[in-house]
Amino acid sequence: MRIESKKKIPMGSKIVGGADPLICLPLMAENFRELKEDARKLISLAPDLIEWRLDYYGEYKDTQKMTHALTTLNEMIGATPLLLTCRSVNEGGHCQLSADQRRRLNLAAISHGGVEFLDVEIHNGIDVILPIKTACEKEGVNLLLSYHNFNETPPQDVLVSQLVKAQDLGAHLAKIAVMPRSPGDVLTLLQAAYTARTQIVEIPIIAISMGSMGVISRIAGGDFGSDIIFAAGEKSSAPGQVPITDLRLHWELMKP
Amino acid sequence: MRIESKKKIPMGSKIVGGADPLICLPLMAENFRELKEDARKLISLAPDLIEWRLDYYGEYKDTQKMTHALTTLNEMIGATPLLLTCRSVNEGGHCQLSADQRRRLNLAAISHGGVEFLDVEIHNGIDVILPIKTACEKEGVNLLLSYHNFNETPPQDVLVSQLVKAQDLGAHLAKIAVMPRSPGDVLTLLQAAYTARTQIVEIPIIAISMGSMGVISRIAGGDFGSDIIFAAGEKSSAPGQVPITDLRLHWELMKP
Repeated sequence: MRIESKKKIPMGSKIVGGADPLICLPLMAENFRELKEDARKLISLAPDLIEWRLDYYGEYKDTQKMTHALTTLNEMIGATPLLLTCRSVNEGGHCQLSADQRRRLNLAAISHGGVEFLDVEIHNGIDVILPIKTACEKEGVNLLLSYHNFNETPPQDVLVSQLVKAQDLGAHLAKIAVMPRSPGDVLTLLQAAYTARTQIVEIPIIAISMGSMGVISRIAGGDFGSDIIFAAGEKSSAPGQVPITDLRLHWELMKP
Repeated sequence: MRIESKKKIPMGSKIVGGADPLICLPLMAENFRELKEDARKLISLAPDLIEWRLDYYGEYKDTQKMTHALTTLNEMIGATPLLLTCRSVNEGGHCQLSADQRRRLNLAAISHGGVEFLDVEIHNGIDVILPIKTACEKEGVNLLLSYHNFNETPPQDVLVSQLVKAQDLGAHLAKIAVMPRSPGDVLTLLQAAYTARTQIVEIPIIAISMGSMGVISRIAGGDFGSDIIFAAGEKSSAPGQVPITDLRLHWELMKP
């Protein structure tokens, strides 16, 4: 039913961009104790990926403490792949980073190891993205370039162009997450994902219409091209995330 | 969240075209014994409406037996409104009727009473529809004009034009049900429903993308304008119908 991505990312026994969308759970611990607690809880929910939202972590700027936490996290989640994301306040996240700090933080994580995917906002520009991309390629990390808009849903061609831009910048995975103001905006997001998948973007994509109005993009987004669904495990990291057990129940009920 | 219909149809304590989509269960009994059994089972599932698919009923052409069955059905389902549908083979149904037979059958049911909604395919044309419409108005029955396509999903403007045509012919309720051949077709159907609702059609509508590929139009169709969702009770009358208990579970899980 679902149309697979032309390019795929093998991930152990699973495939990003394959026959089924995968489920990613965010981890938003604020300190080392919470990190261990949350990792234990999330892993018990058996997600396909875990996203470490580093921007929630109090000591995100201390490279040594960050890599120590990363080592511990990796030991706890075992073979479950890790997506590392450090979103700044103006990107809808919690950290405050200069372009230089962002580059150094990401490069430290990449060279440390234990990161399978790295999320960087497209708007950071080529000066930040290019050195990170080079390091990702050297270490075999998949670069996820993302576009977020927490205020509105731009027109379909703008959404598609963000996915194309991510692909052109060399991303292995492209993400758009936008806020709907009407049910029509939800359709715009789904149509953008489907157009990208079927006509122009060869890499796997993630396409989200946020908030309660966009919930259907999390439940059925896979049908229209979205390859990874962000669900809520312990807590939700974005408005509209469906608890993972509910998401799996929807999918079970929807099986033909 | 959902945009209500400009015109609404009050239905006891419920409203077609109001804040929530309503659930209709089809009854496809082949004989009088089954009719009573199925009515008992369906009513235990507490649908908002019941559709009697008269074309499944062996004695559909015998006006006296049909009206007798209708009386019994009404006694059994009490205040639950009844939608009467007699779909011919070329419309995806089971009966064989000439235009004249169709007119007479529907007129007999309307004048007998106990029918709140009557479904007639738009393609039957004005000669069949007009006398039925006149009788509906006289007896206070709501006319549902429908367009079905079990082979494909026509372009969005064709779908919208069928809803407009139903409205122009004086329908109280307009329905399109089409078969998707790709996930993109499902979006076309949803976009047609949403465009009709927000821009051009004032009466309540029903918009369905059939089959397993279109299941999302039954789960989330209400968000995009569909006012009645056909679910499966005892049996399903069209491909992709979701069992009513599953549909309610989806909706419960999706509540903000």
